[in-house]
Amino acid sequence: MAGSIFGKHFTIQTWGESHGKAIGVVIDGCPAGLALCEEDLMKYLNRRKPGQSRFATPRKEADEVEILSGVFEGRTTGTPISLIVHNTSQKSRDYSEIASYYRPGHADYTFDEKYGFRDYRGGGRSSGRETIGRVAGGAVAAKILQELGITVTAYTKSIGPVTIEYSRFDPELITSTPTGMPDPEADKKAQTYLEECLKETDSAGGVVECVVKNCFAGIGEPVFDKLDARLGQALFSIGAVKAVEIGDGIKAAASKGSENNDAFVLDGRQIVKPSNHAGGILGGISDGSDIICRAYFKPTPSIYKEQLTVNKDLQEIPVHIKGRHDPIIVPRAVVVVECMTALTLVDLLLENMGARMDYLKSLYNRKQ
Amino acid sequence: MAGSIFGKHFTIQTWGESHGKAIGVVIDGCPAGLALCEEDLMKYLNRRKPGQSRFATPRKEADEVEILSGVFEGRTTGTPISLIVHNTSQKSRDYSEIASYYRPGHADYTFDEKYGFRDYRGGGRSSGRETIGRVAGGAVAAKILQELGITVTAYTKSIGPVTIEYSRFDPELITSTPTGMPDPEADKKAQTYLEECLKETDSAGGVVECVVKNCFAGIGEPVFDKLDARLGQALFSIGAVKAVEIGDGIKAAASKGSENNDAFVLDGRQIVKPSNHAGGILGGISDGSDIICRAYFKPTPSIYKEQLTVNKDLQEIPVHIKGRHDPIIVPRAVVVVECMTALTLVDLLLENMGARMDYLKSLYNRKQ
Amino acid sequence: MAGSIFGKHFTIQTWGESHGKAIGVVIDGCPAGLALCEEDLMKYLNRRKPGQSRFATPRKEADEVEILSGVFEGRTTGTPISLIVHNTSQKSRDYSEIASYYRPGHADYTFDEKYGFRDYRGGGRSSGRETIGRVAGGAVAAKILQELGITVTAYTKSIGPVTIEYSRFDPELITSTPTGMPDPEADKKAQTYLEECLKETDSAGGVVECVVKNCFAGIGEPVFDKLDARLGQALFSIGAVKAVEIGDGIKAAASKGSENNDAFVLDGRQIVKPSNHAGGILGGISDGSDIICRAYFKPTPSIYKEQLTVNKDLQEIPVHIKGRHDPIIVPRAVVVVECMTALTLVDLLLENMGARMDYLKSLYNRKQ
Amino acid sequence: MAGSIFGKHFTIQTWGESHGKAIGVVIDGCPAGLALCEEDLMKYLNRRKPGQSRFATPRKEADEVEILSGVFEGRTTGTPISLIVHNTSQKSRDYSEIASYYRPGHADYTFDEKYGFRDYRGGGRSSGRETIGRVAGGAVAAKILQELGITVTAYTKSIGPVTIEYSRFDPELITSTPTGMPDPEADKKAQTYLEECLKETDSAGGVVECVVKNCFAGIGEPVFDKLDARLGQALFSIGAVKAVEIGDGIKAAASKGSENNDAFVLDGRQIVKPSNHAGGILGGISDGSDIICRAYFKPTPSIYKEQLTVNKDLQEIPVHIKGRHDPIIVPRAVVVVECMTALTLVDLLLENMGARMDYLKSLYNRKQ
Repeated sequence: MAGSIFGKHFTIQTWGESHGKAIGVVIDGCPAGLALCEEDLMKYLNRRKPGQSRFATPRKEADEVEILSGVFEGRTTGTPISLIVHNTSQKSRDYSEIASYYRPGHADYTFDEKYGFRDYRGGGRSSGRETIGRVAGGAVAAKILQELGITVTAYTKSIGPVTIEYSRFDPELITSTPTGMPDPEADKKAQTYLEECLKETDSAGGVVECVVKNCFAGIGEPVFDKLDARLGQALFSIGAVKAVEIGDGIKAAASKGSENNDAFVLDGRQIVKPSNHAGGILGGISDGSDIICRAYFKPTPSIYKEQLTVNKDLQEIPVHIKGRHDPIIVPRAVVVVECMTALTLVDLLLENMGARMDYLKSLYNRKQ
Repeated sequence: MAGSIFGKHFTIQTWGESHGKAIGVVIDGCPAGLALCEEDLMKYLNRRKPGQSRFATPRKEADEVEILSGVFEGRTTGTPISLIVHNTSQKSRDYSEIASYYRPGHADYTFDEKYGFRDYRGGGRSSGRETIGRVAGGAVAAKILQELGITVTAYTKSIGPVTIEYSRFDPELITSTPTGMPDPEADKKAQTYLEECLKETDSAGGVVECVVKNCFAGIGEPVFDKLDARLGQALFSIGAVKAVEIGDGIKAAASKGSENNDAFVLDGRQIVKPSNHAGGILGGISDGSDIICRAYFKPTPSIYKEQLTVNKDLQEIPVHIKGRHDPIIVPRAVVVVECMTALTLVDLLLENMGARMDYLKSLYNRKQ
Repeated sequence: MAGSIFGKHFTIQTWGESHGKAIGVVIDGCPAGLALCEEDLMKYLNRRKPGQSRFATPRKEADEVEILSGVFEGRTTGTPISLIVHNTSQKSRDYSEIASYYRPGHADYTFDEKYGFRDYRGGGRSSGRETIGRVAGGAVAAKILQELGITVTAYTKSIGPVTIEYSRFDPELITSTPTGMPDPEADKKAQTYLEECLKETDSAGGVVECVVKNCFAGIGEPVFDKLDARLGQALFSIGAVKAVEIGDGIKAAASKGSENNDAFVLDGRQIVKPSNHAGGILGGISDGSDIICRAYFKPTPSIYKEQLTVNKDLQEIPVHIKGRHDPIIVPRAVVVVECMTALTLVDLLLENMGARMDYLKSLYNRKQ
Repeated sequence: MAGSIFGKHFTIQTWGESHGKAIGVVIDGCPAGLALCEEDLMKYLNRRKPGQSRFATPRKEADEVEILSGVFEGRTTGTPISLIVHNTSQKSRDYSEIASYYRPGHADYTFDEKYGFRDYRGGGRSSGRETIGRVAGGAVAAKILQELGITVTAYTKSIGPVTIEYSRFDPELITSTPTGMPDPEADKKAQTYLEECLKETDSAGGVVECVVKNCFAGIGEPVFDKLDARLGQALFSIGAVKAVEIGDGIKAAASKGSENNDAFVLDGRQIVKPSNHAGGILGGISDGSDIICRAYFKPTPSIYKEQLTVNKDLQEIPVHIKGRHDPIIVPRAVVVVECMTALTLVDLLLENMGARMDYLKSLYNRKQ
């Protein structure tokens, strides 16, 4: 396996290059009997579409998804679900310039070093378009979670210097602003900041936070497949993520035990934690509180501002990256973070089904 | 697989509980012909041993490792290497108190929720003693890297409010201070801080940074098995880690593209990066610069200071955790971070061997 | 992973149902730099096409394969290769009858028991059309083997009572007869037998043998991933296979050690085995002799001859299966056996690259 | 992973060499709450012990197993179960002869080719002693099956020319005869045959059949992880197995569809198959009938009778293998076949728990 398969029980395999014929994903291990149609997927895919604000690339991508297998009479059959999105907007333009040098901050150089050559058209396999497969697969995972009463919600927490607090806003607003910040005031400030970046022919980074509500305690495997470890892999696998936090994250390292520990108290006969520094995970296993994680995105590397690099004739040259690039990828990455979190959770929910002998007995005695 | 296996090519499987008969690890996929003996492993295991300073638990653990298989006449044979450390210092004391309630910040509650009951003696499977297996396995991985000229070095970067800078110190000093900070002045400040924590019957957190030098470009698989994604899983799988950074990490999210991108320039005929904001990874693949990652550890959850929790009779009670606990785990976690990084790298180095047809041809033609 | 992924290093994931929109496969882990085009795949796919003789279903399937990703400028890029074949010949006919009862010898009943319902159109996921993905993936594997000088050749060894011997024929003839028997005389007898079966509205089974030539010694992992164990999984995963043999197979169990052991002798300075009862595998590892395996196929279960079964109203009913079915699947299965063998070998060839420290050193020192 | 891990959900990893310090196995993914003690394991381990008849090696091996982890207060905890058997009977004798040449029919040559050298003491990793780990792990799997009402029973079906029929005997007799044949008459004939072999300083092969009773329909994944495919891998992974059959096996290939298909009929409201040519598996999924598989073992390769081979100085030499070897391994392999079958089933039973949305809902709603 060379890296395009995620998960052990509910697996997705993404495939496709930015300027190839199509982009897609194959899901294996999806339980049978889930109602599923193209609209379920488009709801998520529409959220990552470009061309929705002046901070996203102005190109129009239809990005219509087609279900090729694994669904019969409106329900999943338990067999692989193959999803495809045809690349319609990728015009055959001249890539000879981009093919001739290594763009700073991109994977051009490392792909050449690894494979000996690269598909240089629009970033090839490293293009953000690869996330179409993740979002299509994540939409299915999210639908499974929904059936179990679990919700996964991501939003833009920071853009450049502008930051909002989780407690303060209405999640309904997330998709209503061009930045993905569910706080109109912060959204306005962030827009102003991004316009400055555009003027300077520069780009910006930001932070996406994701909150899982109503997840049972007990999800996650001890040691290497801890819920936080798998979330760590999931979020770092998104291009441009340079840091990941769980709960208090970095702040936890500077606090004291008495500040960082969450007490257990009773809510009726239910054991609950009044605080949640841990971000809903103890010992790698969900504890019933909200699961909270954060992904930090670097600024888009493609900038028009002059940079220094080396070309294939081994000459140092100045470059100005042209083309249709977002000055920030964070608003479009929100749904990707949400989907990677959903995929991680469903995979571990399935794994947890074998955790106890009484689960086996209850399931298989019912069958007998 | 329920979480105790790490890696796909060079795999380790750790086993054992804090107060069981023994702790161990089985390594599979280790190439044949590596010189290996117990001393190679003890060098690493001694670095995680308790009882070496007043900030580490005063109990003496012999922690002598034994190689049970996979090594013949001083060299690895290519078959599984089984390593065992007997638990000699774990006295049978009275665990009835710890069995009766959920310690805040620990995995007691989540293990009960997941499995229906738990081995409550000394933390059971969630004990820090589990890392013995990781360190023994990581010592083998580090030896392989050494043969290829690659070094992996971790050190304590922060304790509470005391922080040092990577550029400023001599790596030889890392093992010379009780805090693992290779800077005598910072070490002294950190010690003062920890003594305050001890007086307050409280605990502290901190940060471990790890630097990989001399690694080739090309290591890491695109998409889900990116080098950073696998490092993310590896580091978050260490109990108590609440955040992970690669390169500039969190700072990258607040910077602009023109600041965060690393230029490519020539050093003779070699392509190099004069800056390293990326932390040695582009598009999930090593770029030939130093690979830099950071793990943020929460404060030790076991504190004597009063906390609130719930017992098994569903009563809210105040608790004072007694016993032999480190007021900070960071100094002993340094070698664990180093080992998890080494394990991740060796696994991906093996995976990369199949990346090109000409690698296959050069290897198999030689055989013909 | 719910069963549609094969391999650990060179993985294929097949997807698609008989009467869905398309059938396909995603290959991950294919080394970069392999010349590949649609014609390479069609050579293999044409061999499993129906409609080529009166013993194969008369329906015409175009089965044109399209490469959707992973190939750039005629060479594999190291990223996933997505291959698709659109289902063009599957007419929307009336499936209400087949949906109403369980066909004997088919997977209808077990799919219903497993998933609660099934895609009943043309066998759904259990259709022989699933093997299109295997053959497309196997064609890529076979091309890799070819580059290393290894050939994989399967042929029809038996049909009903007619059997031929490996030593006696010209492999060039395999694709020249309707039965896949490279012996015109045996082919004629087998045809006569099949015509009898057709007259009796019955069906026949048979045996496919596969021979790998010029494979190095050393391929296969000890214990659970023995070359024979992986071939066993590969061949039994083909629907209708009820027995698998390696080398002398069943006969070995009745022979004595002195008969069954293969001596080692010298051919110049080369160690060789003058006999090959072992079928080229010792201790699960290739020994340099021809690798020989055999798959035994049951007769096609879809027969017009009357059978007894149960319908969904829980009534016992007699059935006569109508439709376009082969009276024998063996001739079309020959290429499937060849492809599964090639896939198994490439996967283990890649795994073996990490078997020795000197392999790592030779590869990575060259890079430095 | 280099081949010593079996399974995806309930995994075993065996380790150890014939003449190393110990042999062992680590089980991961065992559900919590299973009652387990050393006696449960010894029941199975005693059945593979040598020294029980004159057809088994006369050496005495204590083979006492110790549970090192994963069991607390008599029940499995859900964490890895580490089992160890110390090698006590392996005396340090002179291995210089065996080290100097390649034994025909053994893995000596292929290990050297693969790894560059080998642990030549008593077969090293390829020794039959490796199966201790499988049997210890399989005993745990069998105990899980027992709790679900499923039984797995293997017996010696053939030795040389002597064969018995499944229908004819009392399973209680299996462990009562030195040959493992539960038919006193056949057992006597087989003994006579083996004595002849001993006189001729030769060895014999045979067949083990395994029957699973009371397994639900629905177990096994379509396509590559079919129940028969996984059984194929499991049984071929046992050293010396050269053929595997499911149900009618080889005979199915020579029969006609009307003979080989099993009808479905009603037993009350239960759908059953009056015949079982399929061996309990349709489309790779259990159908509720007995699951029947067979493993064909080659004769023990270590014979005193003169054979030709090559030594490390590249000279052809005649050899007479001395030492404590069984003239047949089949009677001791019976429990190994049983254990590999049990391991395969438990793994697929766990995988099947995620097959349907209503399974997830029933399990997780109960938790809420």
